[in-house]
Order: sequence, then structure tokens, then C-alpha cells
Amino acid sequence: MKIALAQLNYHIGNFKENTEKIRMAVRKAEQQGADLVVFAELAVSGYPPRDFLEFDDFIRKCHKAVEEIAQDCTDIAAIVGCPVKNLTGKGKPLFNAALFLENGKVSHETYKTLLPNYDIFDEYRYFEPNRKFETIQFKGKQIALTICEDLWNTGDHPLYVANPMHELMKYKPDLIINIAASPFHYDQQEIRTRILSQNAKNNKLPVFYVNHAGAQTELLFDGGSMVFTPEGVVFDELKYFEEDLKIFDLEEVKHSKKAQSAHHGQSEKIGLIHDALVMGVRNYFKKLGFHKALLGLSGGIDSAVTLVIAVRALGAGNVRAVLMPSAFSSDHSVTDAIKLAENLGCQYDVISIEEAYKSFENTLNPLFRGLPFDITEENLQARIRGVILMAISNKFGHILLNTSNKSEAAVGYGTLYGDMNGGISVLGDVYKTQVFELADYINKDQGIIPLNTITKPPSAELRPGQKDSDSLPDYEILDDILYQYIELRRGPHELINQGFDEETVKKVLRLVNTNEHKRYQTPPTLRVSPKAFGMGRRMPIVARYLT
Amino acid sequence: MKIALAQLNYHIGNFKENTEKIRMAVRKAEQQGADLVVFAELAVSGYPPRDFLEFDDFIRKCHKAVEEIAQDCTDIAAIVGCPVKNLTGKGKPLFNAALFLENGKVSHETYKTLLPNYDIFDEYRYFEPNRKFETIQFKGKQIALTICEDLWNTGDHPLYVANPMHELMKYKPDLIINIAASPFHYDQQEIRTRILSQNAKNNKLPVFYVNHAGAQTELLFDGGSMVFTPEGVVFDELKYFEEDLKIFDLEEVKHSKKAQSAHHGQSEKIGLIHDALVMGVRNYFKKLGFHKALLGLSGGIDSAVTLVIAVRALGAGNVRAVLMPSAFSSDHSVTDAIKLAENLGCQYDVISIEEAYKSFENTLNPLFRGLPFDITEENLQARIRGVILMAISNKFGHILLNTSNKSEAAVGYGTLYGDMNGGISVLGDVYKTQVFELADYINKDQGIIPLNTITKPPSAELRPGQKDSDSLPDYEILDDILYQYIELRRGPHELINQGFDEETVKKVLRLVNTNEHKRYQTPPTLRVSPKAFGMGRRMPIVARYLT
Repeated sequence: MKIALAQLNYHIGNFKENTEKIRMAVRKAEQQGADLVVFAELAVSGYPPRDFLEFDDFIRKCHKAVEEIAQDCTDIAAIVGCPVKNLTGKGKPLFNAALFLENGKVSHETYKTLLPNYDIFDEYRYFEPNRKFETIQFKGKQIALTICEDLWNTGDHPLYVANPMHELMKYKPDLIINIAASPFHYDQQEIRTRILSQNAKNNKLPVFYVNHAGAQTELLFDGGSMVFTPEGVVFDELKYFEEDLKIFDLEEVKHSKKAQSAHHGQSEKIGLIHDALVMGVRNYFKKLGFHKALLGLSGGIDSAVTLVIAVRALGAGNVRAVLMPSAFSSDHSVTDAIKLAENLGCQYDVISIEEAYKSFENTLNPLFRGLPFDITEENLQARIRGVILMAISNKFGHILLNTSNKSEAAVGYGTLYGDMNGGISVLGDVYKTQVFELADYINKDQGIIPLNTITKPPSAELRPGQKDSDSLPDYEILDDILYQYIELRRGPHELINQGFDEETVKKVLRLVNTNEHKRYQTPPTLRVSPKAFGMGRRMPIVARYLT
Repeated sequence: MKIALAQLNYHIGNFKENTEKIRMAVRKAEQQGADLVVFAELAVSGYPPRDFLEFDDFIRKCHKAVEEIAQDCTDIAAIVGCPVKNLTGKGKPLFNAALFLENGKVSHETYKTLLPNYDIFDEYRYFEPNRKFETIQFKGKQIALTICEDLWNTGDHPLYVANPMHELMKYKPDLIINIAASPFHYDQQEIRTRILSQNAKNNKLPVFYVNHAGAQTELLFDGGSMVFTPEGVVFDELKYFEEDLKIFDLEEVKHSKKAQSAHHGQSEKIGLIHDALVMGVRNYFKKLGFHKALLGLSGGIDSAVTLVIAVRALGAGNVRAVLMPSAFSSDHSVTDAIKLAENLGCQYDVISIEEAYKSFENTLNPLFRGLPFDITEENLQARIRGVILMAISNKFGHILLNTSNKSEAAVGYGTLYGDMNGGISVLGDVYKTQVFELADYINKDQGIIPLNTITKPPSAELRPGQKDSDSLPDYEILDDILYQYIELRRGPHELINQGFDEETVKKVLRLVNTNEHKRYQTPPTLRVSPKAFGMGRRMPIVARYLT
């Protein structure tokens, strides 16, 4: 039996495009001699459709798409992910299904048993878990068909009480197929490979795994679909960060004596992050039907790295950088920024914020007279820049890119409605120390980012001689504390016991918690870590915990 | 047996305050002769603690609080809601528990079975459902102790497969206690009463129900704890929108021949919304430790109603209104706004945006020269106002109130980083037609809001002669379509079949869906409807559905 894995980039709710894409892949797989072509989880709707799943009209459109696809499945069978109605009269209204299409119609429906409901996942919001298990007979083979998380209940402290593979093994399957929607983070490929390999080894069965490629707003699907031998060795894998289709012979996989895993992807973590961000920006624009990006280029490292990523995603001709110096900007900030824009070959404008700043001083003078310069005036500068960027964006149809990094977002070192503006946050899940790594990675072959941008002490340049280190711990320490608090959910005692200064720990944790109100209003953030701000981290605002 | 219901206003993560409050209520109940005092679901932590539940430190603090409370429970017993660790080694790491405290310690742990995971609820994110059922013996009675949703699996299409009361009835309980965290929406009290009454009647048992009072950011807990006779009649209820403690004699409730339900609350829907919003604003400020509010007062109805609510929540002395007329403002806008501020007795400032507007015209002139006035310049005015309001807020320590209504938020009729700014959205879950009702309700005794503000055609006043009706359908029609799409999840065909104009329906639905990116960055919204924007409505941004 020949099995094609079709790793496609779907667009949520774009039924026309998704259906055409799937049908084209069915034809291609058939032409190349496949007996079965496998698509990803919820391929028909795109993943995650979120609360669109609550609309009958949306579900009807999913089913209509499946009907169309099924018509092409006469000389080939297909597996396609689709939400279906729960007709049992009890429980959540839908199942997350893998539909088996053959002879022009749906011949089997398999439902997902283990519904992820943590971090960015909300599947129990919509779906009732499966409780009935059976394999699918096709061309004399028994297929154990599973959906993503169904294979993930391994390890010592399983997150679920049930284990679908234990049930399916009773039917003596010949192979495992897993259709997934597994978004990228920098450790995900390693985890995924380990878990799928365990499933292959434990059950002594080949595993065929299909993922999505492409981004849906903040979620970056890295593709990397895989095939495992019954010994748990990676037989082959599909491309990373792009669409791909590949055909495998079941017998060949089953009897392969491969001792070494195949791996075609990036192995360097920072390279993975770079590629994920480029794909994220590219897909965000494409799926919204926009071409042109805009950003404020300060001469600092965050906007520099964001600009490079934007140019790589959209092309230099589609990216416009705006330099907005003030009285507090250092000379080199402007020259560094211009140098970078010229290195990249993208359009830039220099617009002073002086006149606007003076006008607000005058306007507010009746209220502020005699009061000292404080955070108000710092924020004012950032907000004037925000207004200018949004005006250009409105006038010419750019999307503004947010350039804040994760360290800033964490401690609230940024101005709401100012530099925190943007349609999408490119670096909001990248700590400052990782932004430096990204800059080095970008510069490794040729010095694209001016060295001065990388080496000078970080500063918001909102008052004379300001440095980030005036109000924050050194980024090495800050990022370490943030990582342990945010990614690892370690508390104050655990951190202090590690030797971090008590006052620093308490200050940082307080800053993170009291700035929840700011993060609530920031753009969606391209997710590259296991715990990004946004839909994956849900915090109360009025709470008083560690504050 | 005498049972006290303690309906308190908790603060998420504020263990010191919550514990003190609970201990004080334990003492008060004991002094008043209660045998048992019942607190709400997750009382110890406040509800919803959201992802703080993922922190061991947070859970440890919950347990420490319970230990302290238990020390007071020697001559009285207490039931208190608290998250506890799942020690079974399988499934989610926590249970949502009701702890029974007597003789100075925890004598029983009851876990929640039905975990709401829809709308604003995310309980399956954290908690493993209970699978073991038993009653609690106390003073010769068998108590069926349940947690909120555990009693909600009634009706023809139950959302859950299990039904805890079916299991508990096997132990022949003498009464049902339900501890809840049931947030307000304008129909919730009616639904709640019906469901609890059904439980009493079906099981022929008295029901003691305890809710939270007070707001946690957007979630408004309206209190209204209730006691039901075994015939399902409301024996008595506690106060609405505030703390309360009341003691009931079990035998008296059990043998009551009441035929008429007791109801002390507001019965008018718009009055309920009004009271909920006032409580929401008051609690938001109190729990954040702020006193002073700021808002832009335009002379229009939305900011007028918001101002009245803010004054009622915080006192006139704590609310500052800022009028920011432009060349496009009508004269009456300023006079109406001043009249209202004077009627309420709150401070107001008049600040022209003219100079700032001109300065941006000059600043952007090199880029915009020769291009026509468009949405850019409209947004510019709104953003200048946003900058002024945030500057005053930063300088003097006010929280800015957002004054957008739900109709605007739905169709994106507002400027991001302009009039969509604010710490909390007061009217963001109130459709424009309901804002008019609120204005009438506020004006019913005395004409607080100038009549002209209510009767003039709504306008953003961002270009000459502009009216909302230039770009939107009449609010009667718009709100009807929005309500059916947002609250009822009806699709385009269902709406068109009702007789709505096809083009209008498609336009409105497209506006709702394409403005998801704006709503993503708006403040949390006080929730008064069954489907508010924010945590209860989760939509993709890059989707292409009905657009």
C-alpha cells in the first residue's frame, strides 16, 4: 500500500481555497500512484477555527467541503480532518473527526479521544471526546487512525486517564496514522519526534504523521510531517515551514532496517526561531490580503531584527521603515538605522517628533504647568510615534509591525498605545538575550545589522542618558528569572533558593503580574516558545498575587 | 441544623484579605448560632484564578489559607471552595474542591464533576473531573455537596454525559448544598433560579446555594445566593451585587409551605445592567488600588452614560471629564457635555485638539502632501484625544475609562489607540439601543443627561456633517443582526430568511469578522450579556469566513 502525506497550509474558514488545495493534492497523490492520501487535523476548516465552530453555518460549510473532496476519492482513498456533529444527544455538540473517504463518500468517522485543553489549546470547549474504538480496514490492512494528542498520553504522569492506542491495539492494527495540528515552538520537534517514536516502538508499528504547514495569526505550524519504522526510527520527514507532499510504501517502511533517523530541518534553535518568524510574518500578511509592512526603526536591536525578518518575509520593496528621532535620540541611532535600511534596500523616512511634542506640551500646559518631567512625557514621545506610524499605515495601507521583545512585554517596559502598537508582534515571544542571538545569526554571513546596534547598551531614549539597566536588572538575569517564572512556572521561593537576589526576584515577578493589563491590549504575538503571551497564557488583571 | 450562607466579594490571589474575610464570617456565623457556614466555589483564591493555578506556589498559598480557616472551625463547621492537587497520578493536576472543615481540620474533600469549558469558562484547562461520589454526614444529616455546574446538567440536550445528582441520590441525602461562582448576565438569575428549582423538585430536597458577590475585572458576580424548599420554591435569597450573610434553619426550609418565591432584586433588565456596571467599575478600581477615573466626554450618549456610571461607582469627586472639541465638533456637543458634568458635579476640562492636529498635519506633510482627507485624518483626531487622555492619566494617576458601546466594538466603528483606549470598557457589552435604554433609566427620576444628548443623531464628529448612519445601518436593525449573530450564533442564511436585507446582513457580518484584530487589542469589557467580547468569545484573526 502506498500512502501519501499531504502537508498543506490551510486558511481558517477559507473553504474555497482549502478545498481546492486538498482536491489538487488528492489528484497529485493519485497520479503518483498512492492508494491513500492523508491530510492534517481539521484540514477542511483550518486550525484552530475557535468559536466559528459554534456556528451551524460554519459546520455545514465544512461538510459541504468534505462532500466535494469525497467525489474525487474513487480510485484513491483519503483521510481528512473535519469537525462533525455529535448526534448522541449528550455532551459537547461536536467531535473532532478524521474522515475516511473512499468510493466517493465518507466510509468511516474516527473521533479524537484526547482533547488538548491547555496552553493555546481549547478543544474541550467544542468537542466531546471519543469513547468507542475501532480500526479501519483498507486494502487488507487494519489502520489505527488517531488524531494528534491521541498518541501523546505517554510518560509517567499522563495528562489523561484514557489511552486510545491501548484500545486500538486490541484490533491488531498494521500501521498507525496520526493526523495533527501541532504548532511550532523551539522544542516541539524534538518532543514530537520522541513521542511518535515511542508509539512506534511500544506498538511495534510504523507511524505516519501529518502536520499543518503555515501560520494562523500567532500559531506557527512548522510542518515536518514524519514517517517512523516499527523500531521508532525516523524513516523520512517532510519539509519544514512549507507545504510538501510525499509518497511512502508501507512495506518498505515496515521492513526498513534504518538505524539512523532522517532529519532535513534546521537543528539550531535560533535558526528555527528565525525561520518560524519569517514564515509567521509572511503568512499573516498573505492571509489578511496585505502586502506592505511598516515599522518604527529606532537604531536599537529590536526594531533592527524585526526589520530584517520583515524584509525576508515580504521583500525589501514591501517594507517601509520610519525613523522618528527626538531631542533624546543619540546621533548614532539615526545613522545606525539608516545604515540598516540601506543595507536591506528598503524605503525609509525620517520624521521628527519635535513639533508634535511641543504642541502637546502647549496643549497640556494649562493642566501640567509647574509639574516635573516624568513618565508622562516619556510615554508622550512613544505615543506620538505611535500616532505617526498609524497615520502612515492608514494612508498607504501598511500593517504596522510591533517591535517589542518578550522581556519588555513581560515587565511592562513599553508604552501602551505607543511602541506597543502594531498588527502583529514579531519578537514578543523572544527574550532580549535571544534577540541578540537572532542578530548574530542574521549577521553570521554578512554584517547586515550595524555592529553598533548590537553592541551599544539598550535604551528607550526617552530622557537624557536613559539606559534600560537604570530600571531593570541586566538582561541575562532578568531573562533567566522571566524564563523560570513564565515558561517553568517557578515561584518566588524556588527562584530565591536558586540564589537570585530576593529583592530582584520580587520586583520582577511584581512587574510581570502588574503589567497584565498592558499585555491584554497588545497585538497577537508570533509564538516560538512553549509559553508565549496571548492565548496560551491567561491571567487575571485585578489579581493581587506576588504584587 | 442551622446553615449560614456567606456571600462574599473575594479578590483573586489576595490570600490575606480573602482569608481574613472568611474567618470573620465564620466567627459571625458562629456567634449567630449557625452549625455550618457555607462559602462559594474557589473562595480561598477568588474566581477565576486562571493560569495562576499552574503555579505550585499559588496552590500552596491556597492550602495555607484553608489551614488557617480550619483553626476557627471547632464549634462550627464550614464548607469552603479551594483548588487541591490531584494525587492519583493521572489526568489534570488539580481538582476544583469543596472542603468540609470541622474540628479544626479538613474532614472531607468533594470534587467538582462537571467542569464548564465554554464561553468565559476554562475549567477543564486546570481540573480533572471527579468520578467518585459520596455524601457528607454532619449532625445526623447526609449532605449532597455539589459545586456550581454539577447541578446544571438538566434539560433535553445535556452538555455533559455524567450527572452527579443521580449518583448522590443513591446515598439518600437530606439536603443539597451548591457552592458556585456564577457570573452575572442579564438572564442569568432567571436561568439559575429555574435550574436550582428543578434540582430541588426533582430530588425533593432543599437546596442551599452560595454565589460570589463583586467583580473580577470583566466578570461581575451578582450574589443573589438562594435557598429552595423541596418543592422548588425560593425560600429566601441574599442581596444582589453586594456581600451578605444569612442563617437558615434546615427544618424550617424543609417543611416550609411557601407557594410564592421570595425575590428582593431588581427585576427590570436594564436596571440589572445598570447595577452590574456600577459594581463592575467600583470593584475594578478598588481591586487595583485606584480611586480616580478619567474619560473623554464628547457630548454623545455613550460617554454621557459612562460618566454617570463612573460617578455612581466612584463618587463625583473621583471622576474627571475631558472635553476635546475639534473643528468638526458641533457647539451643542460642548454645551451638552458641560451641562452633564455640572449636573453630576464632577471636574471637567476643555482642551482643544486643534494645535496638536495642525502639528501632525505639518509633520506628515512631506508624506501626505496632495492626498485627500480620508479615514487617516479621522483616526488622527481620535488618536490625539487618546494621547491627551493618557497623558492626564499618567500625570495624575487616573484610570482611563473606555466609552465604546458593543455595536461599535462589533463593527469596528472606532479608532484603535484612539477612542478604543482605556483600562476597562464600561459599555462594551451594551448595544447602542441598550445605551439609549440606560440613558432613559438614568433619567427616569430627574433629567441628569441633557435631552439633546439622547435625541440627536449619533455622530463621531470626525468630518463635517458626519452621522453614524452614513456608514452603518440604523441601530435598531444593526443591533438586531448583531444580537442574532453574536449572542445566538445565527448565520447569514438564517438572518436573510428572516427578511433582513441580504446586502446589509453580509456587510454587517463581514464587518464583525474583519474587525477581530481591533477587538483583540481593546480593554477588558464588563460582561452583562450571555456573549460578551473578550474571554467569552474567541475568534481567529486571519480567518476568511463570511468576509
